[in-house]
Amino acid sequence: MKHKAYPAIIGENVSIGENVTIKDGCVIGDNVTIADGSYIDYNVIIRDHVCIGKRSFVGANCILGEYQADFFDGFAADEKHVLDIGERALIRSGSILYSGSAIGKQFQTGHRVTIREHATIGDSVSVGTLSDIQGHCKIGNYVRMHSNVHIGQKSNIENYVWIFPYVILTNDPTPPSYALKGVTLKAFSVIATGSILLPGITVEGDSLVAAGAVVTKDVKQGDVVGGNPAKVISHVSRIKNHVTGESVYPWRYTFKRGMPWEESDYDTWYAKAVQQSDGL
Amino acid sequence: MKHKAYPAIIGENVSIGENVTIKDGCVIGDNVTIADGSYIDYNVIIRDHVCIGKRSFVGANCILGEYQADFFDGFAADEKHVLDIGERALIRSGSILYSGSAIGKQFQTGHRVTIREHATIGDSVSVGTLSDIQGHCKIGNYVRMHSNVHIGQKSNIENYVWIFPYVILTNDPTPPSYALKGVTLKAFSVIATGSILLPGITVEGDSLVAAGAVVTKDVKQGDVVGGNPAKVISHVSRIKNHVTGESVYPWRYTFKRGMPWEESDYDTWYAKAVQQSDGL
Amino acid sequence: MKHKAYPAIIGENVSIGENVTIKDGCVIGDNVTIADGSYIDYNVIIRDHVCIGKRSFVGANCILGEYQADFFDGFAADEKHVLDIGERALIRSGSILYSGSAIGKQFQTGHRVTIREHATIGDSVSVGTLSDIQGHCKIGNYVRMHSNVHIGQKSNIENYVWIFPYVILTNDPTPPSYALKGVTLKAFSVIATGSILLPGITVEGDSLVAAGAVVTKDVKQGDVVGGNPAKVISHVSRIKNHVTGESVYPWRYTFKRGMPWEESDYDTWYAKAVQQSDGL
Repeated sequence: MKHKAYPAIIGENVSIGENVTIKDGCVIGDNVTIADGSYIDYNVIIRDHVCIGKRSFVGANCILGEYQADFFDGFAADEKHVLDIGERALIRSGSILYSGSAIGKQFQTGHRVTIREHATIGDSVSVGTLSDIQGHCKIGNYVRMHSNVHIGQKSNIENYVWIFPYVILTNDPTPPSYALKGVTLKAFSVIATGSILLPGITVEGDSLVAAGAVVTKDVKQGDVVGGNPAKVISHVSRIKNHVTGESVYPWRYTFKRGMPWEESDYDTWYAKAVQQSDGL
Repeated sequence: MKHKAYPAIIGENVSIGENVTIKDGCVIGDNVTIADGSYIDYNVIIRDHVCIGKRSFVGANCILGEYQADFFDGFAADEKHVLDIGERALIRSGSILYSGSAIGKQFQTGHRVTIREHATIGDSVSVGTLSDIQGHCKIGNYVRMHSNVHIGQKSNIENYVWIFPYVILTNDPTPPSYALKGVTLKAFSVIATGSILLPGITVEGDSLVAAGAVVTKDVKQGDVVGGNPAKVISHVSRIKNHVTGESVYPWRYTFKRGMPWEESDYDTWYAKAVQQSDGL
Repeated sequence: MKHKAYPAIIGENVSIGENVTIKDGCVIGDNVTIADGSYIDYNVIIRDHVCIGKRSFVGANCILGEYQADFFDGFAADEKHVLDIGERALIRSGSILYSGSAIGKQFQTGHRVTIREHATIGDSVSVGTLSDIQGHCKIGNYVRMHSNVHIGQKSNIENYVWIFPYVILTNDPTPPSYALKGVTLKAFSVIATGSILLPGITVEGDSLVAAGAVVTKDVKQGDVVGGNPAKVISHVSRIKNHVTGESVYPWRYTFKRGMPWEESDYDTWYAKAVQQSDGL
C-alpha cells in the first residue's frame, strides 16, 4: 500500500493469516478468518462470520456475507449465518455473496455475481459476470456457468455441467404460487446460450439444449433439443467440430481445459479415480 | 460504528432524523432528508435533493439521486431534479436510483437495480436484482418484478402485476426511430420468465404470458399465450396447482403473500376497501 | 470538494491535466494520465497504465484498467497491459474496463458495463447499462448498443450498427470447444431486442433481425428475419413508421440523432466525407 489514506476497519475476533494483503477502504466484521496468502482488494466489505480459504483473491467492491432478509427486521444480523469459501477462490470485483452458503475450493467468479443464501457449491465451480444464483440450490463440482446465468431456487446441478450465457432455470410452474419445483441438470449435460428451462424439468447427461430453446419437457440422454417449445432436433453423435471434423460429444473425450482429466484423458483419469475411491 | 476511519462527508442543509445510522465512507450531498430510524450502509452516495422516508434501509455502494444526462454538459446538477423515496424502503446494495423519480412506500429492491429519471412508482413495489427501469414510465401499487427485468420508457404497468425474470418490455416499433410506443400491462396480468413484449402491446388482466413468449399482438383477458410469435395456447382456467390441484387463476384467490389481502382474502379485503373508499 | 475526509490515493508518475476534478476515495495507480477538464467521481479505481482523454467523465465506483487473468498468478499486473480511452468519454458509475483495450473518442456507457481485454472500439460508440463485452473483438464507429447486450469474443461489428437490449452474439458452435467463430454484423444492420445470433453468422447491412429471433443462418441485405429458428418474414422496404407513415429503412435516411450526418442528411454528409477523403 502506498499510504494508509483510509485504512481498513477491522472488527473483533478476526484471524488474518500470513502474507495477507488488505487494501485500503475495506470493512471487515467480527469473527472473520482470512487464510494465508489471500489478497483483499480495495473497498471490500466482509460482514461477520465469513471464512476465506488460503491463497484467495477478493476483488474490489465485493460484499461477502451479505445480509439475509432477517437482518432488516431489526437491522441486526443473525449469528448463525456463516459463509465458508474454500481455498484458492478468485472472486472478481463487485460480486455479492450472502451469508448462509458453503462454497468449495478453487471457486471462480466474473464481476458482479450474486449468490444468495443456502447455496451449496462444490469444488472448481466457475460463475460468469452478472450471474444470479438465487440460493436454496445445490451445485456440484466442475460446473461452468458463463455470464448472466440465472439459477432459480431448488435447482439441482450435478458435476461437469456447462451452462452458457443468459440461461434461465425457472421454478414456479403456476406463477405466482408457493409450489416451487426446481430444474435438475444431470452430469455432463450442456445448456446453450439463452435457453429457458421450465420448472421441474430434468435434463439427462450427454445431451445438448440448443441456444434459445424453451424446454418444456425432460431431455433424454444424447438428444439435442431446440426451438420454442423445444423438440428433439438432432442427436449429439451427429455434431462435428468445424475445425477438426471429429465428433464433439460426449464432450469429456474432446474437452479437458480446467477439468480433472486435464493432464491425461477422461478414461485414464476415471479409472485412477475409481481405483483411488475418489468416485466420480 | 467501531471507529470513524473515514467518516461520511455530509453536505449543507441536510436533515437527519432520530436513530439514523450512517456507516463510514458515505457521501451525502446538499438538501438531503433522511427520516427517523433509517440505516445507510457503507459507501452510499446520496446526491443533492434526495428525500428518504422513515425506517428505510439503503445498502452498501448504492447511489441515490444519480445524475441525469444534463449533468454532463457542465458537470453540474440541475436543482430542479429531486428523488423522493417513501417510508420503509429496502434498497439492496449496489442499486442506482436517478434523481427525477418518485417512489411510494415499502419499496424493495434486489442488488444493483437501476431506476432512471421520470419513473412514477406506487406503493409496495418490488424490483429484483439487476432489473433496469429505463424511466419515463408509470408503475402502480403491489407490482412484483423479479431479477433482470427490463422496463422500457413509456411502459404503463397497473397494480398487482407480476413480472418474472428476464422479461423485456420494448418500445420502438421500427428501430431505430423517434416514435416510441410503450407496453401496457393491466392489473392482475402475469408475465412469465424470459418473454419479450413488442412495442405498444396491451396485456389484459387475469392473463398469462408463458415463459419465452415473443408477444406481437394484444393479449386478451384469461388467455395464456406462448411461443414465438406468441399464440393463444390455453386458458388460465385450465391451469391447476401441481400440489393442491386447485385452479390457480385468477391468482388473487390463491396467492396472498405480501398483498393487501394477506390477512383475510381478496373478496373480504376488496369489499372493505370499497366501503372505505380506498378504491382498488 | 467539501473537505478531504478520505482523499484519493495517487501513485507514481501520474499526469493530471488542468481543471481536473478528482473526488474523494479514488485510488489512482502508477503511470496514469488524466487529461484536461476531466471529472473523476467518488471511489473510482484507476489501475496502472491507464490514459483518459480530455473532458471525460468517469462515474462513481468505476474500475479502469481492471486486472487481466495473468494478475492472479502472482498478484502482480503485467506492465505491458494498457488502457487507452479517447477524449470526451462518459463512463457511467459502476463500469469496469479492463486493461489491454483501446477505445476511441466520445465513448459513452450506461452503468455497470464490463469491457474485457483486447477490445478495439472506434469513435462515438455507446454501450448500455449492464452490457458485457467479452473482449477479443472489434467494434467500429457510431455503434449503438443498448442495455444488457452480450458481445462474445471474436465478434466483428462494423460502423453504424444498432444492437438493442439483451441481444447475444455467441461464438462456440459446438459447446464446449476450443474452436470459436465470431458473429459479423455489417454496417447499418439492426439487431432487435432479445435476439440470439449463432456462432459464425454474418448479418448484411440494411437488414433487420426481429425481436426474439434465434438466428442460425446468414441474413441477407434488406431481409427481416424472425422466429426460432429465424426465417425471412418480411423485407425492410415494407416497414413504415407508425406516426409518419414513411418507410423507415434504410434507416440512415430517417434517423440522424447522434450520427455524423446529424446536421444535414446522409447523402450530403457522405458526399462531403468522400470528398474530404474521410471515407465512410
